[in-house]
Amino acid sequence: SIVVNHSERSLIFADLTPQEYQLVRNYMWGQADLKISHAATARTSENFIFLIDLLLPKKADALLYLDAKGPKPPREATVVVFFGERGYLKEYVVGPLSGDMRHRDVTKEKYKLPSLPFTARPVTIGEYVQLFTFLYNEVFRKLETELKESFGYIPNQRNLNAFEGMPRGVTAGDRKTWLSFFRDYSGMYIHPVGFEVLINHEDKNSSNWKVEKLLYNGEYFDSINSFKRSYAASRLNKIVFKDISNYASLKPRRRPTGLGPQQYYVQGKRFSVRNNQVIYLDWNFAFGLSSLTGMRVFDVRFKGERIAYELSVQEAMSVYGSITPGMILTKFLDSSIGIGRFAHELVRGVDCPYLATYVDVYRYIDTNVTQRYRNAICVFEHDTGRPLRRHFSDFFHNSYGGLANSALYFRTITAIGNYDYIWDFIFYQSGSVEARVHATGYISSSFKVDGSLKFGHQVAENVLGNIHTHFVNFKVDLDILGVKNVFQTKDMVFEEVPLPWMPQRKAKIPHLVENQIRMERDGALRYDSKMPRYLHVASNQTNCWGHQRSYKLQVVSFAGDHLPESEPEEKSMSWARYKVAITKHKDEEQTSSSLYSQNYMWDPVVDFSKYIEDNEVIDNEDLVAWVTAGFLHIPHAEDIPNTVTVGNGGGVLLRPHNYFDEDPSIHSPDGVYFNPG
Amino acid sequence: SIVVNHSERSLIFADLTPQEYQLVRNYMWGQADLKISHAATARTSENFIFLIDLLLPKKADALLYLDAKGPKPPREATVVVFFGERGYLKEYVVGPLSGDMRHRDVTKEKYKLPSLPFTARPVTIGEYVQLFTFLYNEVFRKLETELKESFGYIPNQRNLNAFEGMPRGVTAGDRKTWLSFFRDYSGMYIHPVGFEVLINHEDKNSSNWKVEKLLYNGEYFDSINSFKRSYAASRLNKIVFKDISNYASLKPRRRPTGLGPQQYYVQGKRFSVRNNQVIYLDWNFAFGLSSLTGMRVFDVRFKGERIAYELSVQEAMSVYGSITPGMILTKFLDSSIGIGRFAHELVRGVDCPYLATYVDVYRYIDTNVTQRYRNAICVFEHDTGRPLRRHFSDFFHNSYGGLANSALYFRTITAIGNYDYIWDFIFYQSGSVEARVHATGYISSSFKVDGSLKFGHQVAENVLGNIHTHFVNFKVDLDILGVKNVFQTKDMVFEEVPLPWMPQRKAKIPHLVENQIRMERDGALRYDSKMPRYLHVASNQTNCWGHQRSYKLQVVSFAGDHLPESEPEEKSMSWARYKVAITKHKDEEQTSSSLYSQNYMWDPVVDFSKYIEDNEVIDNEDLVAWVTAGFLHIPHAEDIPNTVTVGNGGGVLLRPHNYFDEDPSIHSPDGVYFNPG
Ligand SMILES: [Ca+2]
Ligand SMILES: [Ca+2]
Ligand SMILES: [Ca+2]
Ligand SMILES: [Ca+2]
Ligand SMILES: [Cu+2]
Ligand SMILES: [Cu+2]
Repeated sequence: SIVVNHSERSLIFADLTPQEYQLVRNYMWGQADLKISHAATARTSENFIFLIDLLLPKKADALLYLDAKGPKPPREATVVVFFGERGYLKEYVVGPLSGDMRHRDVTKEKYKLPSLPFTARPVTIGEYVQLFTFLYNEVFRKLETELKESFGYIPNQRNLNAFEGMPRGVTAGDRKTWLSFFRDYSGMYIHPVGFEVLINHEDKNSSNWKVEKLLYNGEYFDSINSFKRSYAASRLNKIVFKDISNYASLKPRRRPTGLGPQQYYVQGKRFSVRNNQVIYLDWNFAFGLSSLTGMRVFDVRFKGERIAYELSVQEAMSVYGSITPGMILTKFLDSSIGIGRFAHELVRGVDCPYLATYVDVYRYIDTNVTQRYRNAICVFEHDTGRPLRRHFSDFFHNSYGGLANSALYFRTITAIGNYDYIWDFIFYQSGSVEARVHATGYISSSFKVDGSLKFGHQVAENVLGNIHTHFVNFKVDLDILGVKNVFQTKDMVFEEVPLPWMPQRKAKIPHLVENQIRMERDGALRYDSKMPRYLHVASNQTNCWGHQRSYKLQVVSFAGDHLPESEPEEKSMSWARYKVAITKHKDEEQTSSSLYSQNYMWDPVVDFSKYIEDNEVIDNEDLVAWVTAGFLHIPHAEDIPNTVTVGNGGGVLLRPHNYFDEDPSIHSPDGVYFNPG
Repeated sequence: SIVVNHSERSLIFADLTPQEYQLVRNYMWGQADLKISHAATARTSENFIFLIDLLLPKKADALLYLDAKGPKPPREATVVVFFGERGYLKEYVVGPLSGDMRHRDVTKEKYKLPSLPFTARPVTIGEYVQLFTFLYNEVFRKLETELKESFGYIPNQRNLNAFEGMPRGVTAGDRKTWLSFFRDYSGMYIHPVGFEVLINHEDKNSSNWKVEKLLYNGEYFDSINSFKRSYAASRLNKIVFKDISNYASLKPRRRPTGLGPQQYYVQGKRFSVRNNQVIYLDWNFAFGLSSLTGMRVFDVRFKGERIAYELSVQEAMSVYGSITPGMILTKFLDSSIGIGRFAHELVRGVDCPYLATYVDVYRYIDTNVTQRYRNAICVFEHDTGRPLRRHFSDFFHNSYGGLANSALYFRTITAIGNYDYIWDFIFYQSGSVEARVHATGYISSSFKVDGSLKFGHQVAENVLGNIHTHFVNFKVDLDILGVKNVFQTKDMVFEEVPLPWMPQRKAKIPHLVENQIRMERDGALRYDSKMPRYLHVASNQTNCWGHQRSYKLQVVSFAGDHLPESEPEEKSMSWARYKVAITKHKDEEQTSSSLYSQNYMWDPVVDFSKYIEDNEVIDNEDLVAWVTAGFLHIPHAEDIPNTVTVGNGGGVLLRPHNYFDEDPSIHSPDGVYFNPG
């Protein structure tokens, strides 16, 4: 393998270490006035540290350190505390982690509110424990006969599993969750049983929680008792339990005897990972994994020159259609649950090649200890199987030149409940970087009732695969030769011109049209509008041919409408309006979504469209591109048991466009050339 | 490696063998009345066999043979004869190749014309020989001083190479070609010297050819003499020759020491190629390579069931913008030059993996002998580096199931002058097939003059990379459970509905909208219109959940306008109007373009839009989908020396959608599953 010189500089972007998490936790526990519970999973009525995560350094400080030998920015942590006792949420900055630690309430500074509404918080493990107890006592215990006859419920086995709809209500402050029930099978998500309950768990004291509605085989009931009476009187359409085999199982149906092609590194690994830094041929970058937003890279350099300050996953959203209440309103915003939080161990030979380098990660979220996730990131070089470039010539000259397309992949896979997203950042020898996501795992489904087929296709007995969208948002903070950049578009138009050698004859000829966009509102390119085909973040510096050096953003997406803006929930996902939106960089606009978006959709603390509303000048400023890709998913039988990745993805490719004076891959050590001997 | 049972059935789609080509050629040579020249490269005034190629069996006959034990369709050949003596073109069918051969003039039957106009033919090697002689005598010899001073021309070395603009004129019957001159370097295409001449070579006798115009450093001249006078009097802006290094060279700039990851087959090859048949896991198909249209597969079956009768490349088109005459009108239609004709030997380790299976092909085109092209097709299995599906579960159940995405690639690469297209048909274990094209090789360029920058970017000293499009057309003859199919669309719309459990509250919910399209004109989906996101070719038969079994067409394309329809050349590329067009299958509508499109653009013998104009019913008929993909190419410095494939491609993915009852990859022998031990 290669021997390279790693540097320490990437460490300013490194996730907190187990020691740092512990330091911060203990510090916070030590603040008597905060009265924080030490419980592993606190009750909703207690004060609880939900999250400790790295506070990213301010960009100016980081650049001073990276580029101008400035001081190393201090390590600091963000701490999210759910104050159950007091009924609100707060965020703190704690630091410096080396030295004399202090904490500072940053809620007002970040959100213009002294504290955040208590119902804006995600549901903690502690709250789930309470919810399941409530469910057991208030629903299952009271309906043992009905559930047994209908769904084969066995009290001691608690063999009905719940899946939640989100958001939890229709207006700010609501915390009423429809729970749908599924057979206790692996792959339960495609085993709905036709029973759903609406639980009001708004109150911080679970003793005040209530069952507000029930749905049984398409029929609504106002209470456990009214359902029981109807059932007993056979005034409803009973579902009769039937044992079925588990079509959701991922067990191979054939004895697994196969083994596809495998890659090996003839020269050993040509990349190196140390701490949170990757070096691969001409590339190097820092990386991290945010518990909330997922994977991210910083200070991405090619041949030593920074191309991107940050490239990160921001959000994954899905909007569902259904006739059943558990899914009719469902709009998942995964970063509120935690995207990086669900980056689990990767399986060698399937998730990543056997020979990949695997990296452990540590997180502190929703429990009172740091958790280690082994092999949750993989880094590998892969031959894409198609030349990066080649030319065969037999006109005038006979020769051949070419280059295999080996690229570096940086990957995590996050399994948030039913769905698995495969996240890739790919670094090519031509100076391009690609951010890619593919969806796999289980679809969400509902028990098929009258009218269901308006919302999807049947995919198993009594099971509807519900129509939904997948939208993901990436943050792309390109810095092209420094932070002062412009946003340009290029396209082609046909213009009629006389032919120069026979001016009486006219023809429509493609012309290049270039534009520079000067204001944020004009640089926010909506999904539903026709947009120029080439989008560039450019420097005012030129390459040797006099053209502005730039990177082009090429979005691959099959998405359409995200949600009508008239819907109150839309503000929580307003980033999805734009295929690409360019904003002026601000440290305060670190993310396009937030931890609180899912449960406070109607009045989100982060509304991305506000980043644009002030319509700042984006001419010669530090620009950030927010890119949305996605697709419409109309489930079909082949989604059983799992959705396949082929065709179910999207992303953005960042390509040099007059950034260099020629294709940098001509300098690759892998080049092949020959002419007739 | 695997042991499989190949069958003979694919042979009805096999390209002609060397013996068959010879048989046909000798038979035609034996027809005294046709007076065909035996010359390797005939003069334009002679009668000449331009092409011998397989005549595909009629589909009905083929299906009878394949499915109903009908007779084997006879082997027949298409023969294209350029009658220089008579000033027209004709096509013959010759056959049966085993038995008593006959020939039949099919020109009228195919094209509704007794013969085709002589200027509709492509330029043969013979005509090029005459053109270069003409050039040498009428241009180079007369301008030795001027060319030497300006471009370093050395008479004995003939070190200026020509590149042609197309079409050759502005109206039917024209054959006036602008030739642009380039330095005699490998990669000449990016070494324009600023000199172009317009040659009228319409007459079949080259003695009547004329130089009609000259362009020198942006200035036009009516004759060699007027140019010479201006030059001598220094009344023009002289270009002074300067020796430069060859920035177009593909020679690695660094010593090639690298070797990226390589794949190997742990279990040997899991696919088998015999004759023109490929078997890979559940897939099998027949293949061929048409000299004109390029690669194609037939009788594509998954688990024994035919999914597609034909999947083939049809055309590759590029429209250029320029201020210079050599490129201002240029619209390349590659199938007129021959796409398959330029499928050359593939380089192991770059063009395809070392361990691929390579197949030789034989062609008879533009010369009097059969030519063998070694290793012009490759077939390989490749791990795409991303799981086909996977799910990790730690909610309620702990388990992991997944499958690496190993797929079979069928590939040719065609280098038509400057550009190389990499053509892939990819067969996935989930029952999907993908047709993909990527562009690489050299861009076309022009000598930079005043006004050039409206048509592209400068990419080297005095060199403009001209703006252009890449459009490719695929024929996709899906047969979903037989030939009687329907065309359906699916999409999502938001509709406002009351929430069932609180009807006073309304919300906009995604609904599934399905449509069936009954007429060809409605099934031709124009590039410039909003179209439903899901397009399906469906059977009226249903899967076990009651849904029509279908394949979905998912087009990946970055194309836009192809050419305004008001332009007279547009009829020759009218297929490019449509992202997807569905027609009723006809043997007479075998291709969307033709050999004669390039040189008779204004009145093409095949105008694809006519296939649709008759607006036939496409409801329960044999349907063919014609798919157009492509992208806009605004050349930039990184196109030097070669365009890279990353981001420069397009294609169509054919995905089962309720075709099966579940994902067939669950039966893959490669499946991986485990739960906690
Ligand atoms: Ca702003
Ligand atoms: Ca920036
Ligand atoms: Ca028709
Ligand atoms: Ca068909
Ligand atoms: Cu989905
Ligand atoms: Cu191009």
